[in-house]
Amino acid sequence: MQIAILSFFHYFTPMFKKRENVFEVEEGKFLSPKFDVDGLIPVVTTDCKSGDVLMHGYMNEDALRKTIETKEAHYWSRSRRSLWHKGKSSGFIQKVIELRIDDDQDSVWMKVDIGDGASCRVGYKSCFYRSVPFLKIENYNKVKMNFKEKKKKFDPKKIYKNHSNPTKL
Amino acid sequence: MQIAILSFFHYFTPMFKKRENVFEVEEGKFLSPKFDVDGLIPVVTTDCKSGDVLMHGYMNEDALRKTIETKEAHYWSRSRRSLWHKGKSSGFIQKVIELRIDDDQDSVWMKVDIGDGASCRVGYKSCFYRSVPFLKIENYNKVKMNFKEKKKKFDPKKIYKNHSNPTKL
Repeated sequence: MQIAILSFFHYFTPMFKKRENVFEVEEGKFLSPKFDVDGLIPVVTTDCKSGDVLMHGYMNEDALRKTIETKEAHYWSRSRRSLWHKGKSSGFIQKVIELRIDDDQDSVWMKVDIGDGASCRVGYKSCFYRSVPFLKIENYNKVKMNFKEKKKKFDPKKIYKNHSNPTKL
Repeated sequence: MQIAILSFFHYFTPMFKKRENVFEVEEGKFLSPKFDVDGLIPVVTTDCKSGDVLMHGYMNEDALRKTIETKEAHYWSRSRRSLWHKGKSSGFIQKVIELRIDDDQDSVWMKVDIGDGASCRVGYKSCFYRSVPFLKIENYNKVKMNFKEKKKKFDPKKIYKNHSNPTKL
């Protein structure tokens, strides 16, 4: 019975190439992504113009397939536990310009075009809007960061009216 | 006894600021990184000149502290299960130019200077040396990628003589 269910699943869900040997994964031409125990692969998203890292997220197999086929960034939302077509509610769609995978094919890099838009739910263009100082730190409890973006691109209260905040303590 | 051990640990290991509320984590100035259940935080490393993503790795608390204090990239090697001062065996040290953290402080972005060196164990400058085509894919088993770096920066067999390959299938 279990075999029947698995076969059924495979029939309707096209799978990426099986990871058969290390040389092929690292030096080969075929896409064989490695998803972790939760079925996810980490994704780095950069701005195609500035090169700035906009966000760090995750994809499941379906999100990766949809990104490849639509050229619009799809992620897996770990907080909502669902497929996440970025920008569907906020309007800030990410057009994917280039998609790359790393040597052992366990992480993905996307260059995206967001025009003059934003990527961060807090309202900034990049999620990485604060920088950490380099110092011999005396008190780790008080490492004071600098804001690299001075002004928000949008007011999150207006855009995400009924959404709960996904940030976990 | 357990309390005594914990107190001892805290006395000698300075801790980052406790995550007390979501507003402070997202909009505040203090560094309060979130490490996952394995004690790790994902790290995106980009080249300070080209903006290219060089690698995707992980830090534990100690690696993050050492990076802040030395301005040289330290990671946690998941395959070797040890602190990893990048470049210590290969010579390809990463000088950290800027260190940023994202809105919910659960991922880190480092801009590094590697001069004309390399970051990838396979021999390329960036670990992301292959790009994935955008197409309505007929056969997921045969998604053929393009090599964006044509020539390796070094011969991994010469640099990593006695190291086993960390890539897992």
